[in-house]
Amino acid sequence: MTKKRFAKQSEVIMTEMVLPNDTNTLNNLMGGKLMHWMDVVAAIAAQKHSTRIVVTASADSISFKHPIALGNVVTLKAKVTRAFNSSMEVYIEVFAEDIPANKKITTHRAFFTFVAVDQGGRPIEVPEVEPETEEEIELYEGALRRRQLRLVLAKRMDPKDAVELKSIFNLDEKKEEN
Amino acid sequence: MTKKRFAKQSEVIMTEMVLPNDTNTLNNLMGGKLMHWMDVVAAIAAQKHSTRIVVTASADSISFKHPIALGNVVTLKAKVTRAFNSSMEVYIEVFAEDIPANKKITTHRAFFTFVAVDQGGRPIEVPEVEPETEEEIELYEGALRRRQLRLVLAKRMDPKDAVELKSIFNLDEKKEEN
Amino acid sequence: MTKKRFAKQSEVIMTEMVLPNDTNTLNNLMGGKLMHWMDVVAAIAAQKHSTRIVVTASADSISFKHPIALGNVVTLKAKVTRAFNSSMEVYIEVFAEDIPANKKITTHRAFFTFVAVDQGGRPIEVPEVEPETEEEIELYEGALRRRQLRLVLAKRMDPKDAVELKSIFNLDEKKEEN
Amino acid sequence: MTKKRFAKQSEVIMTEMVLPNDTNTLNNLMGGKLMHWMDVVAAIAAQKHSTRIVVTASADSISFKHPIALGNVVTLKAKVTRAFNSSMEVYIEVFAEDIPANKKITTHRAFFTFVAVDQGGRPIEVPEVEPETEEEIELYEGALRRRQLRLVLAKRMDPKDAVELKSIFNLDEKKEEN
Amino acid sequence: MTKKRFAKQSEVIMTEMVLPNDTNTLNNLMGGKLMHWMDVVAAIAAQKHSTRIVVTASADSISFKHPIALGNVVTLKAKVTRAFNSSMEVYIEVFAEDIPANKKITTHRAFFTFVAVDQGGRPIEVPEVEPETEEEIELYEGALRRRQLRLVLAKRMDPKDAVELKSIFNLDEKKEEN
Amino acid sequence: MTKKRFAKQSEVIMTEMVLPNDTNTLNNLMGGKLMHWMDVVAAIAAQKHSTRIVVTASADSISFKHPIALGNVVTLKAKVTRAFNSSMEVYIEVFAEDIPANKKITTHRAFFTFVAVDQGGRPIEVPEVEPETEEEIELYEGALRRRQLRLVLAKRMDPKDAVELKSIFNLDEKKEEN
Repeated sequence: MTKKRFAKQSEVIMTEMVLPNDTNTLNNLMGGKLMHWMDVVAAIAAQKHSTRIVVTASADSISFKHPIALGNVVTLKAKVTRAFNSSMEVYIEVFAEDIPANKKITTHRAFFTFVAVDQGGRPIEVPEVEPETEEEIELYEGALRRRQLRLVLAKRMDPKDAVELKSIFNLDEKKEEN
Repeated sequence: MTKKRFAKQSEVIMTEMVLPNDTNTLNNLMGGKLMHWMDVVAAIAAQKHSTRIVVTASADSISFKHPIALGNVVTLKAKVTRAFNSSMEVYIEVFAEDIPANKKITTHRAFFTFVAVDQGGRPIEVPEVEPETEEEIELYEGALRRRQLRLVLAKRMDPKDAVELKSIFNLDEKKEEN
Repeated sequence: MTKKRFAKQSEVIMTEMVLPNDTNTLNNLMGGKLMHWMDVVAAIAAQKHSTRIVVTASADSISFKHPIALGNVVTLKAKVTRAFNSSMEVYIEVFAEDIPANKKITTHRAFFTFVAVDQGGRPIEVPEVEPETEEEIELYEGALRRRQLRLVLAKRMDPKDAVELKSIFNLDEKKEEN
Repeated sequence: MTKKRFAKQSEVIMTEMVLPNDTNTLNNLMGGKLMHWMDVVAAIAAQKHSTRIVVTASADSISFKHPIALGNVVTLKAKVTRAFNSSMEVYIEVFAEDIPANKKITTHRAFFTFVAVDQGGRPIEVPEVEPETEEEIELYEGALRRRQLRLVLAKRMDPKDAVELKSIFNLDEKKEEN
Repeated sequence: MTKKRFAKQSEVIMTEMVLPNDTNTLNNLMGGKLMHWMDVVAAIAAQKHSTRIVVTASADSISFKHPIALGNVVTLKAKVTRAFNSSMEVYIEVFAEDIPANKKITTHRAFFTFVAVDQGGRPIEVPEVEPETEEEIELYEGALRRRQLRLVLAKRMDPKDAVELKSIFNLDEKKEEN
Repeated sequence: MTKKRFAKQSEVIMTEMVLPNDTNTLNNLMGGKLMHWMDVVAAIAAQKHSTRIVVTASADSISFKHPIALGNVVTLKAKVTRAFNSSMEVYIEVFAEDIPANKKITTHRAFFTFVAVDQGGRPIEVPEVEPETEEEIELYEGALRRRQLRLVLAKRMDPKDAVELKSIFNLDEKKEEN
């Protein structure tokens, strides 16, 4: 049996500068480029938790509210929230800074899931996650609801079996958001 | 008032080859790279519909079931499904081919939304979409449900106001998937 | 014996956005970058016709009349015109659009040839091309003249043996151009 | 009136290593990538001759006989052969070396033309070329024939006016090739 | 007068994966690519300390003892050690991990200096550094010696005026290294 | 025993254009990008001298005095100065030109060292260097001093054994610099 690992052991920080080729006609970071960075930082976090090769299984819906400008420094933090057999949910926070203007401009939050695989690409069991801080515990507990939403959206679970999913619309989740 | 445009007028086809730098340790396309391509092809479709600069507003959840190998040819098709004032939903289909092996390996389906903006980055109204084929009509009708799900997930709509959203779990949607 | 394939079966459409690193000091697409894209799209068309690995054999002379600006969307269409044993001629059309300005700015036409090879890099026979539309038939018929020109320019054919080549200077060819 | 400049004053040498993303499925340099490098090195030569911004006007037909392998060092030499008002013909030689194997594997020869422009993109007169070595003189003299071929292929000159062009098929040109 | 800032306020962590195009023929990270990453992470640290645009002034000698393999995760940590008017010294530590093999393979240490500039590129004064931890104090104190070595190597200081430099060869420095 | 090779036999010239993604917020070439190019050109020179695979062993301290602007042409010249068993010192000169402004803007000088290795990555002896010109002889003679400085800085040589190193501060070296 695989032993537990602390959530913080998987934490990864990535820093990128927005270069000209990363931007659209308004000189802001393209959404697809940000998703690419999210995938890389989250994959490394999942690798650190599982000490395995990992492949992206899904990306949850992402909302792009705040434009990130050319020359900004983008910091991405990723941490595994919970494991389910061979799959892991990773939580990603994104910060954008215009350093000469001395302001942290914007934040994103996203969830990606990864599957740990062996050299032949077959799924392989990973350690469970041991959350410690209050935020880690909240993320751990919300992971089950988000997993049911993913399965329902992918038509791999019947909505009426998604017991925890109903709570996605209730007050607890809203509190977590703020 | 802005006049309607046919869905097919926004159609864009993009073809890419999977190169070494696009792949993970198993020599398969990284999920983040595919999301980047999806964002580019969908942005062009939204540009074609609106004849405006567009910025990514959201990416719906994406499931990565099928690995795409190094050397494969990836075809992405994007088409605007429906417009809501200044925002547009774009439907993206992805095909991967191993041409020497003579097989089309895999398909993905995804929805991104974009907002049309003027040179100052302010939202600007876009034409409505006129669906013609059966598939276009289905996508047009499903767009309202998906929009409500996005708003609920982003905590910008109260679940009890999401009238059409409930149907996301019912039979019509399942049929559309197949 | 290898059976015929329709010209249209090899058709490939590629869409690219002109990014800052693709441009020269005047903010226009560099010629070499466009040739690179032409090579990729044409190689995929030749792959589709032959269902083989292909290598570039030659690029015909290309004239760059119309500058393509930063931010433009470039669409490349490629289709195999005719096969000669292991080699295939591919016809490429290029369109550039400034979508917010609502104009299709420019067109290019080019011919590349490819050789189908096995895993060891040895030439291998490919199916013949069956042209259907009027344009496909014209391209099929002109292919022999262009092939003789290539061989003469490469000093691999004596000009006096290039029977069809002489017609490159006559009225038929001019009509095809317009 | 603009004074002459020696051919050798425009000479440029570029060295590149073939990296994984530059190669096709057989691990050989893609033709399109080589054309991109040719365009860059030739543009710099034309810049040096004219001390102006230059834009690619045309690329003559290129034949790819010798595969260039991953890890090879590619050397490109470019030199202006002759100027015609605002346009310049540039001659490019390509060498590929597998250094650990101690062999220079292959050579290419190509001609590109460029137009010198002012900041507004308008053509502007350039100095004439003063050839010195025997090779430079041969290239200078052949430039007129190649220019007529380009104009005829682009339907901008009537073949019967292309007096020098006829010699493209005769013995002098063949000798130059070897 | 500009007030002091703590060393840790400038700390930046960057994480990169070694991709095929970053490697040499032995599939190890190229030294030049690592230096590029070092420059980016150190520039961001200098930006954070000064809240200014910064330009690289110098890179101290770097020794590459440990090969870093394809697929490894490289973590770079940068922190400003000391400021001198408009210039800042940044200390960079590099870690390389082969996560599936569960080992942190290698470490590098390097010093880069940067100058803070205004929009016109003119040097501009930056805050002093307030070191707190024992390591930060050691780095702060060593900065003067390293600065004298840089000036002597650049022929901008007479060796006999480099009072602190002599200590570069003594025991204190050796202790710091281990 | 391995026979000598002339210094000039290893000479390599590389030409690059500064593209948008190579630049910082002031539109000048980033220091890290220049170091990357230096590493590539110097590695090729070391390959040519040794006809072996080579890996970067060290980069000497580099001073960045002159900004190199977007659109500039950068020329790098590299040549092996001296060999020590399996290692080689390479001298790199950098020139930057703003061709339309008709000025060669700046020069850099740097020294990198490389080790020749076999396919298994084990060091392997290389030919000695035979300097010919006055500059080559000066570089050959200075190589011993620079090697001692590298070893002392890397704590692999006791300063009191660095006999030649003392001369780094004396008049000969200064003369060489100008």
